[in-house]
Amino acid sequence: MSKKLTSRAEDYSKWYNELVVKADLAENSAVRGCMVIKPYGYAIWEKMQAELDKMFKETGHQNAYFPLFVPKSLFEAEEKNAEGFAKECAVVTHYRLQNDPDKPGKLRVDPAAKLEEELVVRPTSEAIIWNTYKGWIQSYRDLPLLINQWANVVRWEMRTRLFLRTAEFLWQEGHTAHATKAEALKEAELMNNVYANFAENFMAIPVVKGVKTESERFAGADETYCIEALMQDGKALQAGTSHFLGQNFAKAFDVKFTSKEGKQDYVWATSWGVSTRLMGALIMTHSDDEGLVLPPSLAPNQVVIVPIYKTDEQFEEISKIANLIKSDLYAKNISVKYDDRDTYRPGAKFAQHELQGVPLRIAIGPKDLEKGTVEIARRDTKTKEVIALDNLTSTVETLLEDIQNNLYKKALDYRDSHITKVENFEEFKETLNNKGGFISAHWDGTIETEDKIKEITKATIRCMPVDSEKEEGKCVFTGNPSKGRVLFAKAY
Amino acid sequence: MSKKLTSRAEDYSKWYNELVVKADLAENSAVRGCMVIKPYGYAIWEKMQAELDKMFKETGHQNAYFPLFVPKSLFEAEEKNAEGFAKECAVVTHYRLQNDPDKPGKLRVDPAAKLEEELVVRPTSEAIIWNTYKGWIQSYRDLPLLINQWANVVRWEMRTRLFLRTAEFLWQEGHTAHATKAEALKEAELMNNVYANFAENFMAIPVVKGVKTESERFAGADETYCIEALMQDGKALQAGTSHFLGQNFAKAFDVKFTSKEGKQDYVWATSWGVSTRLMGALIMTHSDDEGLVLPPSLAPNQVVIVPIYKTDEQFEEISKIANLIKSDLYAKNISVKYDDRDTYRPGAKFAQHELQGVPLRIAIGPKDLEKGTVEIARRDTKTKEVIALDNLTSTVETLLEDIQNNLYKKALDYRDSHITKVENFEEFKETLNNKGGFISAHWDGTIETEDKIKEITKATIRCMPVDSEKEEGKCVFTGNPSKGRVLFAKAY
Ligand SMILES: [Zn+2]
Ligand SMILES: [Zn+2]
Repeated sequence: MSKKLTSRAEDYSKWYNELVVKADLAENSAVRGCMVIKPYGYAIWEKMQAELDKMFKETGHQNAYFPLFVPKSLFEAEEKNAEGFAKECAVVTHYRLQNDPDKPGKLRVDPAAKLEEELVVRPTSEAIIWNTYKGWIQSYRDLPLLINQWANVVRWEMRTRLFLRTAEFLWQEGHTAHATKAEALKEAELMNNVYANFAENFMAIPVVKGVKTESERFAGADETYCIEALMQDGKALQAGTSHFLGQNFAKAFDVKFTSKEGKQDYVWATSWGVSTRLMGALIMTHSDDEGLVLPPSLAPNQVVIVPIYKTDEQFEEISKIANLIKSDLYAKNISVKYDDRDTYRPGAKFAQHELQGVPLRIAIGPKDLEKGTVEIARRDTKTKEVIALDNLTSTVETLLEDIQNNLYKKALDYRDSHITKVENFEEFKETLNNKGGFISAHWDGTIETEDKIKEITKATIRCMPVDSEKEEGKCVFTGNPSKGRVLFAKAY
Repeated sequence: MSKKLTSRAEDYSKWYNELVVKADLAENSAVRGCMVIKPYGYAIWEKMQAELDKMFKETGHQNAYFPLFVPKSLFEAEEKNAEGFAKECAVVTHYRLQNDPDKPGKLRVDPAAKLEEELVVRPTSEAIIWNTYKGWIQSYRDLPLLINQWANVVRWEMRTRLFLRTAEFLWQEGHTAHATKAEALKEAELMNNVYANFAENFMAIPVVKGVKTESERFAGADETYCIEALMQDGKALQAGTSHFLGQNFAKAFDVKFTSKEGKQDYVWATSWGVSTRLMGALIMTHSDDEGLVLPPSLAPNQVVIVPIYKTDEQFEEISKIANLIKSDLYAKNISVKYDDRDTYRPGAKFAQHELQGVPLRIAIGPKDLEKGTVEIARRDTKTKEVIALDNLTSTVETLLEDIQNNLYKKALDYRDSHITKVENFEEFKETLNNKGGFISAHWDGTIETEDKIKEITKATIRCMPVDSEKEEGKCVFTGNPSKGRVLFAKAY
């Protein structure tokens, strides 16, 4: 098997990159900045998708699919949005290749097949979707329109990292239309809450729910809600955003509706999304120097069974027991893999399953056959115990629950102990450099101050937490009056 | 509601286009040739996806995700494949937009942001995937590699039609690697059988399993298996293909493995795919002049309940019963919608659900309240019956099964009565023009004859059926010896 990972203490960034590749989650491709999501990584993403999709449907949303391409003239219609994404757009200009007359066997772009209007590969779909909604919305009876799309998007990033920042990534984007401002605001908050529930209860990642400052807002939004998580290296990661778009897109695409009372008004909008970036959050929240650690709810295999044997007879006996265990656990909706490959030794299998974060490992050897026992090992705490076969199913159920809760608690303890209140800029810098994490500080509410702090410290305002108590104070940087604390951090 | 559809007899093509739009399945977008798949259409596609995904996993395949873009140098590596797709490729040449100095508020492609190497938007993913497999395959222990991807692809078609031929479409593409030719051939056949089972048992669409002639093969394949369905207008539709790729891609991308015996050899490959084109097959197999007809297995709502009332009290009583029915059927895994909208009259609701192909409609009116009955109507046969509430659940279960079977049987009868054996070219042309459908005829096996027949009649060889009996004869066109009959048809 592969050599040990670089430890987190030695080089956190290197540890992350190695883990992603060695645990078979993803790898770089031949296309600059685009990743290949490998089967094991994709299986985890599928679990996220399934759960999110269920949550979206339970809150009344339907899926649909809109084009990959956005004609330039539509793309530029909502000015702020266009400005925000223009610098990172992949652009299709031609629709045909031809044989290269100068290089036999090679192709070149056919100059005669130039598009009249260039097509932008969607970096986000507000433009193409609101252009479509124009045809779908006439009256209040057509509202609300609650639609989600699972799709790939492209943002031409210069510095990319697997899952965290890639030129192409997978995501879902919700796009809703409402008759009133209040309803749209409520929707944006609701979906931010859905994301928070998903992160905490499914991914075991504690998050702060908040609102972005103007300069950190989505291009084209009037308000951006977000969930912010804290990684083990003390840096924050924005795990999801939900935007109240006001009437900006409705005005840009002229989408009006007739109310019950017969009046015409522009429609109110939201959009919200999470992406394969969540894979990065997952890895950097729970994993350790031995590799990936997965909460059971996201594990493609929650349990792996490894046989330890010398003779064929032993192998046969162990396999019988393993298959019984498998079907017992399967009946309880627990996913189990029996790793009976004869091309690898038990030690190599242990190492692989540890690296890939399988929550529980059951080993069965000749002694277990005699005693009617198995050895069960937890990935999160690395504790082992020998238990009787009779108690196995209930033990596994209990342990899986324990692991899920333990991972959340551990991450929560870490997060909570890394929110530091500071009262002056010296403390601010000291905390940021020595401890990291979120810094809770007063801010005077101006972009100038925000920019200066960023320039000096590289920390940005991650959010104004929605659950925080109102507390007046003085700005940590200017000393000017502040209406409440905000959270600063260095961020991914 | 919308006006009646054009009838099939009047204009089949117009009927199809109107149905797709009026039944809320899909519509054209602002992007030439790209469609918007609307929520109702997408919900049907999701049912197909879920079933296919299950079938792929049951046959040992895993999902993964590969980049949207293919660098031109990789795209051209397998020459036949490149040649086959070069003429319909969308090409990304730039990665940034900038403000247009001549047009305030408008954007233009930034000439300084030209890519060194152009990127092809994948029309199919063999190139990028085999370039990746090179890093994944070293030894026989890495084989077989059984991977599927759900993705969007782009083929710049000049004449497009919703679902049937669109510039962007959704599909799945399986890409497998094997140690031996025999194993790869078996895989290609297996997946063609999976497609046939899916079409027949899930979509209620009878198909002919066959092999393509050389000129109809996938570009880069040594053999293409396919399933061919017959539409109501007598034209064939290729519903899925499975390709044996030989060692073509392994050689183009230098993918070798070391066998158990220590020998090096190129890997053997298959690829196979079905797409949103299946939506077109679904529509044109079962639907009628009143709109969509859905087999219950694909219906987002298998049952709709419509209340008929004059007073609020009646509505309340009916709603109580409707909700009881809903939960009874839900317990049997039957999807039910209670259409209690007060903004539409029952007649309008009936028309909409008929247009959208809901298999069973239950109406509950004041008389039903008195008698403890409901009226149940089948979409496929348009028959109605009044039944006692007590028998409802079992009746619904039986009817849904009947509908599924009836739709298949009806389509099969039509298909079977439209396979016509002909012995000479006069019969061939007469049958094609007057009756349509598949023509079973002898062919001399040459591309020249195939081309000439196509030129004269517009019919192509759909396939050489795998299940057909060996029968020698004389070519229907040249009179030269033939080793067996093939199926000709005009096709979508
Ligand atoms: Zn610390
Ligand atoms: Zn006929």
